[in-house]
Parts: sequence; structure tokens; C-alpha cells
Amino acid sequence: MSTPMSVEQYRDLILQDVAALPSAQLPLAQCLGLTTTATVTAHVAVPPFTNSAMDGFAVHAEDVASASPDNPIRLQVIGEVPAGAVSDEWVGNGQAVRVMTGAAVPGGANAVVPVEQTDQQPGAAPLPDEIRVNAAVGERANIRLAGEDLAEGDLVLAAGVLLDATSVAAAAATGHGTLSVIGKPRVAIIATGSELVAPGQPLDRGQIHDSNSIMLFGLAQEAGANPVSVSRCSDTPAELDQAIAEAVRTADVVITTGGVSVGTHDVVKNSALADVLSFVRVAMQPGKPQGHGVLTSPDGRRVPIVTLPGNPVSVFVSWHCFVVPLLNRLAGRDAETAIRWARAVAGQDWRSPAGRRQYIPVARLDNDLVVPTHRLGSGSHLIASLHLADGLAVIPADVDQVTAGDRVDVLMTRCWR
Amino acid sequence: MSTPMSVEQYRDLILQDVAALPSAQLPLAQCLGLTTTATVTAHVAVPPFTNSAMDGFAVHAEDVASASPDNPIRLQVIGEVPAGAVSDEWVGNGQAVRVMTGAAVPGGANAVVPVEQTDQQPGAAPLPDEIRVNAAVGERANIRLAGEDLAEGDLVLAAGVLLDATSVAAAAATGHGTLSVIGKPRVAIIATGSELVAPGQPLDRGQIHDSNSIMLFGLAQEAGANPVSVSRCSDTPAELDQAIAEAVRTADVVITTGGVSVGTHDVVKNSALADVLSFVRVAMQPGKPQGHGVLTSPDGRRVPIVTLPGNPVSVFVSWHCFVVPLLNRLAGRDAETAIRWARAVAGQDWRSPAGRRQYIPVARLDNDLVVPTHRLGSGSHLIASLHLADGLAVIPADVDQVTAGDRVDVLMTRCWR
Repeated sequence: MSTPMSVEQYRDLILQDVAALPSAQLPLAQCLGLTTTATVTAHVAVPPFTNSAMDGFAVHAEDVASASPDNPIRLQVIGEVPAGAVSDEWVGNGQAVRVMTGAAVPGGANAVVPVEQTDQQPGAAPLPDEIRVNAAVGERANIRLAGEDLAEGDLVLAAGVLLDATSVAAAAATGHGTLSVIGKPRVAIIATGSELVAPGQPLDRGQIHDSNSIMLFGLAQEAGANPVSVSRCSDTPAELDQAIAEAVRTADVVITTGGVSVGTHDVVKNSALADVLSFVRVAMQPGKPQGHGVLTSPDGRRVPIVTLPGNPVSVFVSWHCFVVPLLNRLAGRDAETAIRWARAVAGQDWRSPAGRRQYIPVARLDNDLVVPTHRLGSGSHLIASLHLADGLAVIPADVDQVTAGDRVDVLMTRCWR
Repeated sequence: MSTPMSVEQYRDLILQDVAALPSAQLPLAQCLGLTTTATVTAHVAVPPFTNSAMDGFAVHAEDVASASPDNPIRLQVIGEVPAGAVSDEWVGNGQAVRVMTGAAVPGGANAVVPVEQTDQQPGAAPLPDEIRVNAAVGERANIRLAGEDLAEGDLVLAAGVLLDATSVAAAAATGHGTLSVIGKPRVAIIATGSELVAPGQPLDRGQIHDSNSIMLFGLAQEAGANPVSVSRCSDTPAELDQAIAEAVRTADVVITTGGVSVGTHDVVKNSALADVLSFVRVAMQPGKPQGHGVLTSPDGRRVPIVTLPGNPVSVFVSWHCFVVPLLNRLAGRDAETAIRWARAVAGQDWRSPAGRRQYIPVARLDNDLVVPTHRLGSGSHLIASLHLADGLAVIPADVDQVTAGDRVDVLMTRCWR
């Protein structure tokens, strides 16, 4: 047999020739979790006009330079500017205009005195004829200049950005109602194995509950993809070929689990599908047997397929190493987007297989210590305890023993912390 | 005026008397992102039966103790166990049964020899009459014991757990098809302000684009809530009261922005709504003026309302400090769930307001350095650059100057890393 590939070699092989999906112009409310395909520049400046940072009075700073509680300065109030309105009044010396936070600063004024620094009560009140100011303010005090956040034409968002609440808000603030984006990759999931029974159904002898398909359904959502179909099939090759034919119709990528190893009944290897796949051994534990290829949909789209091993922890590890980068690529963003690494310290000893890179589920304790989530370490069948993991400690292939206190790199996998 | 409250005091005030929403029993595929309301124990052990960790042959370890390439040991093959099946054959001394990964280990055998350590080819092949084993294996080698991950009756998930892909998979693997969960809190969002214009629409003088409502729509999704309605209203009190009446019908919580400060036209303060609200000043920057209360829906549900300030960065900061804990509480989980903190080091100097805790948007550079995302620091109007932030550096109220090299705590706010 040939030498196993490294994780990086295999990931690059999967990504080879995979292009981003087509883009569309969508309203902002539909853009969350999608990826920009073009740079976004400001159509309007932020703020779009010079405005007040406080509720108060627009004044000439020099008029109130000597103001204090003992020496209040009297100013004539000549009008007001509520939010959303403008005033064409000119504020002359000795004069003031009442302004709300965010209101345009009227001409002539060069500072805003907060209402709390006058003799006026905060809140709703009729417009007074005059006010007494009891504190000095500097020129430009409490004034936000047009464009001081971002000027018209400035870059707001680069191409290839995964859009979250704040980036969509930035697009809104700079005059955009729609963006050119790539939608969530549609994922078809097929769990193979004659031993699999649907969750909640009774088990016969030799059977287990299928946890892979529900896990992949969730992982796809957590990775910003759209799991459009989920199915289970036995180790009968014709059944798998049928499931693949269904999946490829609506999916942008197909993920299978199981049937890729060296067993006699390994369905993926025995099906017609095997003709379009390359099977690879990767120098990792768990997750060694892997397969990948490209299918063609009835309407002529190239649909990548990744055939993962069947053990649930192998599925989880393979997902993070290979499928997340593939989904990123399909969505038009950098393959490493949203993949988080942390440096940590081993909180106990554990063994790692020689010659293969270990990915071991670990929980993160306080002060950056990590410990395996199960006494059996990186066993690929430990699905019931995998949810305790905050990440996967990654132990180099040439290390066979981790000792408490060793520095370890951790691929963070918890979606919500 | 009274002394401003601390962030923690105000958060506790909002949470006071807020109870978890009703629960429901839902299929696993609908449980992602929801919260358990009861402990989940294993209905079946994982693995449910003792099985093979490899594709190979179930044998007596003592039969092959002296096996090597130079001294292969011949065994008689008496049957096979594909995955999902069982064998009632008894493996006697000198005998072997072919097994697939995950298949039940037949009686009598006490070890599995991987196919690679025999004279058999990996992959599909007819069942041989006999094999030659060319390596010794220890007792229990390549065998997974029933219940070695989790035994029947063991705790799988606690109550109050936010369910992700792996925790739902753990429930599936341990025999559950449904879980008792609390659904995503339904959020109604109302942005107030006569100056607000829908994203993408032309601006008149004195107007700005509403970025708050789209940001809250996104933040609600990122926090695992369900934004069921989004509306905008002017500074006319009757319009706001109408919007509130609509919102409370379908929402579990109502969030408004704007109109809570000391201005003459502050709509929330001037509306009928003000009668059920408490207005509070919080010793934070941005985000000082806040309001909260409890509404009653037409069908008699208590619906908390939080009235945030109007400046976008204030909205963002207030969301993380007050609304995320409230959503956690409504969803039946610990108020701090999914709130991530990091320790970092200031990468440059910046000023912080005396007497108020600063929440300043920062980008995280390599090696844990953080720098403000904008030269204007924590200005509450800097919406177009907020998306550059990985988190909010939190500077204590008694600090007015941060110096490069200072340790700072960072509330991590980026949803996808």
C-alpha cells in the first residue's frame, strides 16, 4: 500500500478544481450567513451629515466659554431640530437651537451643550425662549462630523466576507438595500450501513442507532450550509446508487458516511459510485479511510462528493478537517474561514498513535487546560461523550505520548462558545 | 438624579421574575439550537453490544500468540458477521469468524485480527475456508466492549443544555428519538426614530438609514432566537403604541431601539408604554440610557420588553450585556450560556470615560493583542466599522486610560469564530 497522505495534502486534493457556487443579488435580510462576492463601498457617508451626539442646544462655543454654575450664560433659543428634520436657521452669537441626538447641527453653531448643563429639564418640554448654560464646552464638543466613521466611496466590506449581523448593518448604514452574495451550499447527507436504525426506534440484535445523519444535519447548519436531504441506506450497492442519484438532483455537495474501509461489505467501495471516487488513506486518527470525487447532476452541475468513514468520531473529525474547508470554498470564501484554533496546555497524560496525527476530543477547563472527554481518548466510536468536547487537540504524528503540561494546539469545534 | 446602576445590577433587574418559556417534546431534527428541560439518560448503552473495531477475523488470542510473517498460524473460518447482523456460531480454538467494523463479536472469540494482518486481501471477497494470521494480537485487541462509552441509565445530557450537533447525536446514539426542549424565544424588534429610512432607500436631509433593525434581526438569529417581527416607527407616540400592540401578539420578548434618553421627542418616554417601563441609567459607555418592563399579550402571557438606546454601537453593546442573558433565561438555560470571554493585551493606548465602564469594539490580532476598530474608539455611532470587531474590550469604570501592554478582558462577539 502507498504511504498515507497528510491531512493538508488530502484537503487540498478535495479542494482542487472546486469552484464557488453562482451568486445572486439579495435583500439584506436574506444575506445573513451568506458570503459577499464583490467589494462593498459606501454609497453614503456615516454619519451622512454633521449631527449632535447629545440631546441639548447647538451654540457658539465661544459664547459659553466663561459659563459655570455661578456664572450661567443666557442664550436666546431661536428654534429646534428634532431627529429626522433639518433647520435652515442660522445660529448667531448669543443664540441657541434645541437639538436631539442625531439631529443635524444647524449652520453657525460649532458645539452642542447637553441639556444637563443648562437650566432646562430633560425630557419633553415646550421650546423655551431662552436658556441658561452653566458649563463651558469646547469647539466641536458633542458634534459628530459627517463621514467621521466612513466617507462616501470608502471600502465597507471586502469580497469573500461571511456576513454576520454587524456586517449587514454596515451595508445598511452605507446605503445598501441588497448585496451580491453566494447562498448557503446545499448539502445532501447519506448514512450507509445495514446496522443503522432510525433514532428512537427499537434495536434488533447487532443493530445500532444512526447518530451520524442527525450529527451531519446539525454540523451542516452550524457551518452555514443548508442540509437539503438526509437519508440512510443499507450495505446494498444498488440502494446506495439510488440514494446518490436522488441526492445529486438538489445538492451542491454530497456527504456519505461508512463503507469506505477494507471490509468485505463496504458499500461505497462496492457500488457504481466507486468508479468516480478516489479512495485515500490519511495519516490521522481517527479518520484514516477517506474517499472523494465529483458527480454530475442531471442539469450538468459538478457536485463534489466526500465519502467519510462510518465511526461517528471519525465523521466529526473529518467534517472539520475536510468538509468545512470544502463548504467555505463552495460559498466563495477562504477555505479557513470560521475555523478557530486555540493554544492550550494538556491537563493530563494521554497516548497518541505513532505515525498518525491524533485528533482527540478535549474539554477546556479554566486557565487553558484541556483534558480528553473520555478515558478511552480518541476512540472513534465514542459518540455519547463527544458533545462534552470544546475542541479537538491535534497531536503531531511523531508524538506518541502527551504529558500533562505539554503545549497543544486545539481545533475549536463548539459552535456556540 | 440617582447614581447610575452597574451593568450587573441592571442585568439582574431585567432577569428578575423572568421565567423559562413552556417546553415541548420534539423530534431530534427539530431540537438543534434548543435547550433541554430535563436530564437525558441512556436508554441503550453505547456501544449497545460488544463489537469489532476493525474489519478482520474474530479469533482466540492464544491461538495466534506465536504468529509472525515467518510463522503464520492457520485458522479455520466457520462463518462471518456483516454489520447489522449477528452470528450464533461459537468460535472454538483453531477457528475464526470474519467480522466487519462494528459487527457483534461472536461467542468464544476474545480478539479481532485486522484483515491486514492475515493472508487475505482487503475489500470484497468470498468467504475463505481458512486464513493464515501473520501477527499476534492481545486479548481484547480491536474489541469495543458493550457500554464502554456510556452504560444504560448513565447521564447523557443535563437539563438546561443548549443542543448542538454532537449533543443531539448523543441523544440519538443512546436511544432517543425526541427530547423535551424549550423552543427559540420569539423576538419582536421595533426601531424608533423619525430620522430612519429603510436600507437602500434614498435619504432626505436629516435622515439616516436604519441599521439597527437589520442588526437586531441578525443578532437574534446568532443568539439562537427567532426574530418573528421587525418594524420601524417614527417619534409619534401613537405609532409606537400601535407597533407594540402588534408585536406583543406573537413575540416572547420585545426589543426597541431609540427614544429612551433625555431629549424632548424621545418617543418611548412619551408613549403610553412608558407607564409599564422603568428607565435606568447604567454606568457604561456606550449604552447609558436603558429601559425595561413587562407587557401582557392578548392571551395573557407576560412578555418582557427591553428598550435600548438608539445609537447602533449602544444597541450592540446592550444586546450582549442585557438581551443575550434574557434570551438565555427565556430559553431555560443559564443566563451566561454561550457568552465567551477572552483575556487579551491592549495593542495600543486609548482613552476610556471616567466613572463608566467602557465597552470598546476591538479587533484581535495575532498573539492576543487587541486594538480598537476605529480611531474614535467607543463612539456609539460608529456602525460602519463595528463589523471589524471580534469583541468588546471591557475597561473598568475607574480606568480612564488604557496603555499598550495592559491586560484587558474581552467579551467575544463574533458569532462565527
